[in-house]
Parts: sequence; C-alpha cells; structure tokens
Amino acid sequence: MRPSVDRPSGDRPSGDRPFAERVVDAVAAIGPLCAGLDPSTAVLDAWGLTDDPAGLRAFGALCVEALAGVVPVVKPQVAFFERHGAAGMAAFEDLVAGTRSAGLLAIADAKRGDVGTTVEAYAEAWFDSPLAADAVTAHPYLGFGALAPMVAAAHRTGRGLLVVVASSNPEGRALQEATTAGGASVESALLEEIASVNRDAGGPLGGVGPVGAVIGATRSLPTLVGLGGIVLAPGVGAQGASAADVGRLVEGCPPGTVLPSASRSLLRAGPGGLRDAAARLRDELAVAIR
Amino acid sequence: MRPSVDRPSGDRPSGDRPFAERVVDAVAAIGPLCAGLDPSTAVLDAWGLTDDPAGLRAFGALCVEALAGVVPVVKPQVAFFERHGAAGMAAFEDLVAGTRSAGLLAIADAKRGDVGTTVEAYAEAWFDSPLAADAVTAHPYLGFGALAPMVAAAHRTGRGLLVVVASSNPEGRALQEATTAGGASVESALLEEIASVNRDAGGPLGGVGPVGAVIGATRSLPTLVGLGGIVLAPGVGAQGASAADVGRLVEGCPPGTVLPSASRSLLRAGPGGLRDAAARLRDELAVAIR
Repeated sequence: MRPSVDRPSGDRPSGDRPFAERVVDAVAAIGPLCAGLDPSTAVLDAWGLTDDPAGLRAFGALCVEALAGVVPVVKPQVAFFERHGAAGMAAFEDLVAGTRSAGLLAIADAKRGDVGTTVEAYAEAWFDSPLAADAVTAHPYLGFGALAPMVAAAHRTGRGLLVVVASSNPEGRALQEATTAGGASVESALLEEIASVNRDAGGPLGGVGPVGAVIGATRSLPTLVGLGGIVLAPGVGAQGASAADVGRLVEGCPPGTVLPSASRSLLRAGPGGLRDAAARLRDELAVAIR
Repeated sequence: MRPSVDRPSGDRPSGDRPFAERVVDAVAAIGPLCAGLDPSTAVLDAWGLTDDPAGLRAFGALCVEALAGVVPVVKPQVAFFERHGAAGMAAFEDLVAGTRSAGLLAIADAKRGDVGTTVEAYAEAWFDSPLAADAVTAHPYLGFGALAPMVAAAHRTGRGLLVVVASSNPEGRALQEATTAGGASVESALLEEIASVNRDAGGPLGGVGPVGAVIGATRSLPTLVGLGGIVLAPGVGAQGASAADVGRLVEGCPPGTVLPSASRSLLRAGPGGLRDAAARLRDELAVAIR
C-alpha cells in the first residue's frame, strides 16, 4: 500500500495548488454552490438536445458557458455519460477539458471503489487519464483503507478524493447507521478515518487535506467539524434540502470548505435560465452558511 | 421505483434465457470457474503488449481465444480499461462483443451504485448500451433498495446484477460486519434483501433469480444457501483462497450457481499458458465443489 503523505510536487499539474485550497479560494471569490450536471434523457429533451454523444457534448458546452464565473465548482455525474458507452465517456472527457479552459473546478461524480490493484487502476483512471477532473467521488463499501492508492494519487496530483459517507435517501440509512465493533456508526467511523488521513497530510490551511466527504444535505453529523477536508453536500432543491438545512449541516466547518450541490432544480431552468438560477441559489446559500 | 418482477420478454435479447439459467447450464457443460481479466500495466508488460488501448484490445482478443470453451464465464474488471479513458472503454466494448461471438458469458466488474435517477442511468449503461455484458457488479453503500432500477433492468433484459456483499480484504470487515438496527450484520441483512427479491422473481429453477452476490472466496456466510441467485466468489489463487475454501463457502448451494473467480494466478501463465492453467484450476474446483 502506498503511503498517503508522499507528495512529489513534480507530478502535480504545473502551478496548481491542492484541490482543497483551490475550492476554498473559489468559494471565497464566487460563493458556495456546486452545480450538478446530470444529462438524463429527460433533461436533454427539455433542453432541445438529442439523447446521444453529440447531445451530451452540447449539454456540457452550454453548462460551462452558463456557469463559468457564476459557480466555483461543477459536478458532472459520470453515469449519465456512461449511458452512451465509450462514446458518452469521450463526451465526458471533453466536458472536463472545457471546465479546465473556463477556470471552473470539476468533481467527477463516479463513486468508484474496490480493493488492491483495482483501486490502483481507478487511481490511474481518475487522477492521471483524460477522465481526471479536479476531484473524484468514491464509495467505501470495501473499506476506506482499501482506497489508499486513490488517497495517495490525490495527494500526489493535487486533486481531491471525496468519499461517500452519509446519504439522504432512506434506503441508505440501515447500512450507514449500523454499529461497528468499536461502537461508532459506520458513517461516524468513516469520518474519523478521513479526519485521521487529513491530519497526517497537514497542509498550509491547518489540516484541510486531500480527502473530503460526501454528506447528503439533509443529514447532520456532529463529527463533521474536525474532518479537515472538503464537504460535498448534494441534495439541495429537488432532493429536499433547503439552504437552512445546509446551514445546520456545516455549522463550525472552516469557511469555504463546504460545497452544497444542486442539480435538477438548476437544470430545469433550461440553458437560457441556468445562469440566473445558479446565481440566485448561490446567493441564498451564502447567506445561510454565513 | 420500478417493480422488480416486471419482465416483458420482448425486451430480452432474442432467444436468451435469464443470466442465472445460462450460468447454471454453462457450468454444467464446462465446469465451475470464472476467469478474471485484469489488464494491469504489469500484466500487459508480461504478455508483451503495449499499455494503451491497442494493447487492451489485443489482451481481450487473446483471452477470448484462449478461454472460449474452457471456462463458462469471464469477468473483465472495468477499472483496468478505464485507465485509458474513453478509448480504454471502447476496447472494453470490443471485448464484450468478442465474448458474445465466442459464446463466453461475461460479467462486467464495475461495482456501480448510487441513488435515484443516477441508478437509472447506470441501468441504461450496463444493461442497454454497448457496455452491457451478461451481468454487472454493483455496490450497496447507498442501500440495496436504491439499486431497484438496476434490479428491474436485469429482470427485463435477462441479464444479471451481482451485488458486492462480503469481501475478503481486512479493510472491509468493520463495515460489512457492523450491526444493523435489526440485529443482523450488514452482510447478512443484504443477503436477506437479495433473497427476498429473488423469491419474488420466482423462475423455472425454483428461485434462482436475477440478483446474485459477490462473496470473497475466503468468507463463510451461513445464509448463503437460501440466496436464490448466482454467487460470484473472487479471490481464488493470488488472493489466498484455495479450492477447499470455495468448497466450504458454497456447501448447500444449488449446483452450478457458484462461480469461483481467479485472475492473477491465471494471467501469470501468459497468453500461451492461460488455457491450460484455466483448465487445471477449473477441474480442481469441480472436485472441491462437488
């Protein structure tokens, strides 16, 4: 297993600071909102686009154009591109390149995870291939420790790894609230493992390290304050979380480390209304989080 | 949520019987072994192939040629193709097409999983796009119930969904053995949820339904016997499980429903030795399972 604190700076994209620092800076400059990009059949239809790789490309270009400078971060959901197989994934690569040109940070919502050499392969895919955005999400069903090669790659490349910890959907509660042998819930034990890696990583922001957590915006977890990483909080809007919910969730977290994320509630504004819808929600969240 | 027992047969590949029945038939005809196809940099190097999409394509073609008629099922690990981005995924699509032409069943080891419309998108990707093999693996971190759209798609298309339940790696034990509110462990509760879906599905084999489980071959779970689905048991060979371990794991499971899987221990035989290595291990497992 590779060490998690080894970070030869030569491997990092030239001039880039680590993901967590770039998020904090961008949130300070623009505001606290991550725009989820979910090009489902329904969304593409509503936008007047074809449900094929060309439609996915057009969707991505429209989103980048509407959102650059308006939100700090976008989160394309990889599954919606994968619907069209390898050709859809090529459209995803183009979207990632487009966000980079536009100065938008991008989180690839892929929820990858496995063990051993397979995690090393995922680290290659999501930190060192044309799929690599500024961060990627992962799932910990096979153990957070099994993700070590992705943690190491995040550190080495200055990218971020966001681990799914607690989801808002009712089907996830039984597993995530189950009690581990140490007495903590699965989700609390995971937060402690992540916090420990971030403490080891140190960093100029006093411990905002390369590993973050994905926490449904309607959840509330007392141990979140000491995480030392970025918190991605999906579920604002269509999935039922209000700006006030987000405010409660992130109370005590360092400024700029929380990214509330909305998708359908923004995308239903259409390509013409997306920019204004995002600006409005961003400003509402800025008030709630402050 | 789509119903899990709705199966309009017109949507299924013409003439195909459901995945579980095809596995049982193929194991009866050939023997009990799934060959894991993991084209890491190290494997491609050892095989004299380039670590690029062309090398992945050559690897896939060599494996199909060596293994057709020798093993019933292959399990390409998607992560190793994703290392090369969309171009790598195109090589994966070619491998899936190659297995189909050769009459080899293929399980896409992708471990996908999420909630809501994202799971619907994964169902499109892995049951209805060029990526679709005969089955796909999924992870249940967001709850087995959240996978319902994939369960429904498996049923509708005659393909299989194999849910990761218990892994052999030490990092996975804390989560998978955690105690749910009902008193059962996470892994046991999952097996019961899967068994329930398979009971509802019925089927001519007396309850071998569309949902299976992935259980590390060194594990032992008393509730496996009533699963009513295919059991994929990776970890034979390089990961430490012996044929005898597999025999203990599957005691009492219906004939042909268990697929022990080996990868590195086969691939290290090289393209010239793969066929013989697979035949030897298959025969050894046939004795241990009987």
